[in-house]
Amino acid sequence: MLSQRLRNDALRQRIVSAEEACTWIEDGMTVGISGFTSAGDVKVVPSALVERVKKEGKPFKINLYTGASISAADGLMAEAGIINCRLPYQSDRRMRKAINRGEVHYLDQHLSHTAEMLRSGAIHTIDVALIEAIAITEEGHIIPSTSLGNSHIYAQQAQTIIVELNLAQNLALEGLHDIYDPGEQGHRLPIPLTSAGQRIGSTKIEIDIEKIKGIVITNRPDFTSEMTPPDAETEQMAEHLVQFLMEEVEQGHLPKHLEPLQSGVGSVANAVFYGFLKSDLTDLEVYSEVLQDSVFELIDAGKIKVASGCAFTLSPARYGQVMSNLDKYRDRIVLRPQEMSNNPGIIRRLGLIAINTALEVDIYGNVNSTHVMGTQMMNGIGGSGDFARNSRLTFFCTKSYAKDGKISSIVPMVSHVDHTEHDVDVVVTEQGLADLRGLAPRQRAEQIIEHCAHPDYRPQLRAYLEEASALGGHTPHVLEKALSWHVRFQQTGTMKDETTVH
Amino acid sequence: MLSQRLRNDALRQRIVSAEEACTWIEDGMTVGISGFTSAGDVKVVPSALVERVKKEGKPFKINLYTGASISAADGLMAEAGIINCRLPYQSDRRMRKAINRGEVHYLDQHLSHTAEMLRSGAIHTIDVALIEAIAITEEGHIIPSTSLGNSHIYAQQAQTIIVELNLAQNLALEGLHDIYDPGEQGHRLPIPLTSAGQRIGSTKIEIDIEKIKGIVITNRPDFTSEMTPPDAETEQMAEHLVQFLMEEVEQGHLPKHLEPLQSGVGSVANAVFYGFLKSDLTDLEVYSEVLQDSVFELIDAGKIKVASGCAFTLSPARYGQVMSNLDKYRDRIVLRPQEMSNNPGIIRRLGLIAINTALEVDIYGNVNSTHVMGTQMMNGIGGSGDFARNSRLTFFCTKSYAKDGKISSIVPMVSHVDHTEHDVDVVVTEQGLADLRGLAPRQRAEQIIEHCAHPDYRPQLRAYLEEASALGGHTPHVLEKALSWHVRFQQTGTMKDETTVH
Repeated sequence: MLSQRLRNDALRQRIVSAEEACTWIEDGMTVGISGFTSAGDVKVVPSALVERVKKEGKPFKINLYTGASISAADGLMAEAGIINCRLPYQSDRRMRKAINRGEVHYLDQHLSHTAEMLRSGAIHTIDVALIEAIAITEEGHIIPSTSLGNSHIYAQQAQTIIVELNLAQNLALEGLHDIYDPGEQGHRLPIPLTSAGQRIGSTKIEIDIEKIKGIVITNRPDFTSEMTPPDAETEQMAEHLVQFLMEEVEQGHLPKHLEPLQSGVGSVANAVFYGFLKSDLTDLEVYSEVLQDSVFELIDAGKIKVASGCAFTLSPARYGQVMSNLDKYRDRIVLRPQEMSNNPGIIRRLGLIAINTALEVDIYGNVNSTHVMGTQMMNGIGGSGDFARNSRLTFFCTKSYAKDGKISSIVPMVSHVDHTEHDVDVVVTEQGLADLRGLAPRQRAEQIIEHCAHPDYRPQLRAYLEEASALGGHTPHVLEKALSWHVRFQQTGTMKDETTVH
Repeated sequence: MLSQRLRNDALRQRIVSAEEACTWIEDGMTVGISGFTSAGDVKVVPSALVERVKKEGKPFKINLYTGASISAADGLMAEAGIINCRLPYQSDRRMRKAINRGEVHYLDQHLSHTAEMLRSGAIHTIDVALIEAIAITEEGHIIPSTSLGNSHIYAQQAQTIIVELNLAQNLALEGLHDIYDPGEQGHRLPIPLTSAGQRIGSTKIEIDIEKIKGIVITNRPDFTSEMTPPDAETEQMAEHLVQFLMEEVEQGHLPKHLEPLQSGVGSVANAVFYGFLKSDLTDLEVYSEVLQDSVFELIDAGKIKVASGCAFTLSPARYGQVMSNLDKYRDRIVLRPQEMSNNPGIIRRLGLIAINTALEVDIYGNVNSTHVMGTQMMNGIGGSGDFARNSRLTFFCTKSYAKDGKISSIVPMVSHVDHTEHDVDVVVTEQGLADLRGLAPRQRAEQIIEHCAHPDYRPQLRAYLEEASALGGHTPHVLEKALSWHVRFQQTGTMKDETTVH
């Protein structure tokens, strides 16, 4: 059995315990690990490291680079206080707290940027790469598991590689990956990808076998969690969005099969995809970061022809169903490195339709995706910037309010900008949809207020716009009031201004 | 003589006066014209149109699309009140005023986006294209003059084309252009460009000869203006920047010939390029929007091997010198459409070094390039977003202060965001340089305050950062004070806070 997984007999001598492997990670090192939304992350060495460091009781800090969010390791390491720098994305409760206390230096990056920054020496080089695999080939090449993320570039750049060989991950994953390395900037050929499902690379991470210092055998499935099911409001947003796309098709602005779809992680994007289930759309393609439950449901229903991503992000039930039916999905799924799934040139070439989530949107269409009240990091920008700027059609979705109506998601000025108005085509809330294409700021404001804001907040927004417009300017603002809604929430617990005449 | 310019005899019958040609432009139409920084813009039909409309005295509005800024026409048309929508960039005093009064709907766009928006139907389609040419071939193909900008896509998408055949533009410009059309999104091949000087397209705008409705003969050189000469402070900025690049070369992060350089329009970027004159650097390449005076000086000095852009942007003296020595520059210059000069995929592939100008920068590295005091449009974002996000190394330059020190260009929070901190690697002022790569927000703030801010404002900035950091958060802010510097300037005429202990 192990010979199927470890195809070079000599490598058996490198099998070590997690406890031994973790001793190779030293204070001050930079560690690049596999894992993207808990899929294919390393499962035992990080916790062994935390245990070891606790026992030793000496000062110890590492830089931790991942694909995106990971499961337990982020929380454990943050709590143990062993992270100096963390990039490019996280979504862990305890890590988030450490970041917001300023204890962890968090580099919130466009997910396609990390590999380039490593190549150009803009960030610390990788000392140790920790990669989950389903197998290692005779040549010592690594066959990854349920995500690719940055694993390839971390393995390539690392001095030392530790592989977690996970017997619980289905060997039938072999062949799903497509690993293409663009090479050094300035010496590159054009990336040959011209369609969502095309294969252009290797199914393995090709590295020098001598870099594999140790192999830790594990036997744990990915951590999976239930997706928040669609509620009435996410369903309304999905309806608005699908209807808009159908109208674009009718008007001849989009082909019948649309263009390849990207959707961010989360229940809103998932609800939108479920919205396609009820539509007449067929022959859909997906070119996205994550492949969520809905993608597989749409494949099963004959709606999606092919789906490309850099990770599976599945609920417990769907994880089991997909992993035990991989042959059924084999011709319809491609897993790529995140610098390929999120590549600006490819996104523009294919003309994607990008659907991402906002925390808040301002009346001019600037989007905050990351910072609660402008200061507290939620998760990170992730790939939304890669897609928003380069797609053919860019949607941002948010419920029009939060905290039982005490927060309006539509505000005069966002408290932090992740996506500027130049990159936002359409804003969707449960209230409706604002098509901002071809509109100047004052026109955008009217659309967003009347179609997206919650009715409770429209009078306040109209009053702000009126006061600002009277002052003039291309993007009118009353600077002393621009962030007053956030200040009011902090001081009174609601953004509602009782002095505005309703 | 005319036969060299008008190579199909039948076209002679389509020669018309500007007065006649302008009658084909009707109320409500969308007009796409050539011109990028006054280079190669149409010179007589727009003013004839303004005269005609004034005479007729009837309601008249058109949408005006260009490459970027143009010369006299923007001011004339803005003053006549005949513009409904204007895109994607302008820099005219009178147009700016009309925009800020809300009379002109201005779409401030990434310069690489306009062509894609036309293809996908996101903006009004072109009714009439007005293109300056040096010649029209036997097949009716248009040979452009000193800029390419969006001329190709406007001509391709237009119902009707009017050519201004400009006898004052040197015929030796023929062959400098390289017009590549990527085709429809979703049906594209990879753009084959792999080096700055490579030619991949046609030297002509290839259109159906029947679309050329009229040809207006003109005889006017481009409007040129003197570049603001470097002053002590722009020279200091250039020194900081060139020294930084030399250190990157020494550390092996950049090759000796650097990577292809991009620089925005203006005196700062020009000064930086002059800084290379004094350096030991050779074999430089340029892959930029505009080719300014300094590019030709560096070619003359044997420093620049090849330069690609979408327009010449020259001073009066340099315009004369370049235009009468085109054979000398022929092998070193390529003019491309702006969707190619600014193409995200190409910018990343070549690994550019991008140098652009900021109006203001905040302590976390967010950049405002467009809006004075957050509301008044100056010019537009132009191509800075295309380059900043996709380059290997992104610089933003600004003097640390404006208005005799009454405005600090380094502020707690920018009043408008064009470039988010994710896209800003290095900030340069005359005070020094902050290398933000690999730094989290609180670390970035220290670098920017200590290295870039004017000493007069450092105590205030430190006080803000300290107060904000005590409140916590990944990107600490005191929301009620975040824009208070701008408000103070509006109310008191200075950003200086006399209550801060110095």
